[in-house]
Amino acid sequence: MTGKLYGLGIGPGDPELLTLKALRLLQAVPVVAYPAPEEGDSLARAIVASHLPGGQTEIEIRMPMVAARFPAQEVYDWAAGEIGGHLEADRDVAVLCEGDPFFYGSFMYLFGRVAERFPVEVVPGVSSLTACAAVLGAPLAARNDVLTVIPATLERHELAQLLRDAEAAAIIKVGRHLQKVRKVLDLLGLLDRARYVERATMGEQRILPLDSLEEAGAPYFSMILVHRRGEAWT
Amino acid sequence: MTGKLYGLGIGPGDPELLTLKALRLLQAVPVVAYPAPEEGDSLARAIVASHLPGGQTEIEIRMPMVAARFPAQEVYDWAAGEIGGHLEADRDVAVLCEGDPFFYGSFMYLFGRVAERFPVEVVPGVSSLTACAAVLGAPLAARNDVLTVIPATLERHELAQLLRDAEAAAIIKVGRHLQKVRKVLDLLGLLDRARYVERATMGEQRILPLDSLEEAGAPYFSMILVHRRGEAWT
Repeated sequence: MTGKLYGLGIGPGDPELLTLKALRLLQAVPVVAYPAPEEGDSLARAIVASHLPGGQTEIEIRMPMVAARFPAQEVYDWAAGEIGGHLEADRDVAVLCEGDPFFYGSFMYLFGRVAERFPVEVVPGVSSLTACAAVLGAPLAARNDVLTVIPATLERHELAQLLRDAEAAAIIKVGRHLQKVRKVLDLLGLLDRARYVERATMGEQRILPLDSLEEAGAPYFSMILVHRRGEAWT
Repeated sequence: MTGKLYGLGIGPGDPELLTLKALRLLQAVPVVAYPAPEEGDSLARAIVASHLPGGQTEIEIRMPMVAARFPAQEVYDWAAGEIGGHLEADRDVAVLCEGDPFFYGSFMYLFGRVAERFPVEVVPGVSSLTACAAVLGAPLAARNDVLTVIPATLERHELAQLLRDAEAAAIIKVGRHLQKVRKVLDLLGLLDRARYVERATMGEQRILPLDSLEEAGAPYFSMILVHRRGEAWT
């Protein structure tokens, strides 16, 4: 007998956007793991803090603030080892995943290391994608729209090609790529069709038209939605 | 004073994938509205049935089984009138939306008719998109993947062009378009990279490689996920 690994989607930030299933499992497991910055508090843990029953073992997966891939791989190796130890001892482990575990989430790195040896169940969560559309009060996509989800990390010419052809687009991972994305949208004449959302459903949420945003960079939890035909429901 | 309209995302089918917020509002409002077929039971109502407190006014939005657009417009006009009457009388109304209200949902037709006159709040839900990835046990998209969401209703040449260029794709609204989609994926050599999910997270859920599916058509609640690079986490 071994324990089971749960990838728990905990939603975009509002603690009330947890699902009933995620809440039940969160409170039932003996071990909870979550990503955290190198120093300071974990956002994932903060989202569920009011729901934690207390007395659980917690595994902090602290990610060094470097862009290189190899240190991150070492952290995931370590975390998979810690988690595997609990699973071997028949203790279920829930990994907290902001948004949805399989929508551009870091959970996949643990999943890839653990899924062959132990049972894994992924509990889908409300993704930042639909949370942004909800707080904007505008449909993400409708009818026969093609929706393209584009990481802002791509090269400028790739962004330009994708955005030129897209009917509806969600640009994710904006962060330090904000100015590059703005320039591409400006060149394509799409700046006035783009809306910027920061920390959707959280206390510090901000929404504004992209062309009125004055900062040079954006936080990690920001997204730009573009709809070529404007209001999709008209 | 008027009431408020809530677009409640109720998730992909499993009643436990309702959010805490949707549950609270569902049980607090005096009026609940939901889509239903011309005859028979509403899936949206069935998803939340175990959570309904009883004693609420219910508005069934029964959609005729025809492809034409105009009868549907008349039904939405009627429903907006019914809902508007309750809002005028200061009664909050929750419209139940399978998945997420703004992810290809029919809620936008009511939203477009009601949002200018009354306050509206959209509560995002777990979409079928991430639910399908969860039950498949495979990341939808990761790292710098571009994810394209493609309605199967598009013409064959449009599907071919989109799928040829896509790194990761979710083909939605499969239904009677199943054979067309299969042919396109086969021509592109992508059939063995395509997985078919029917009624994700519901009791009758089915998952299989697309090339082993024998039916000529698919139910409305089906989706095909394609990932060009195979397992995204490797």
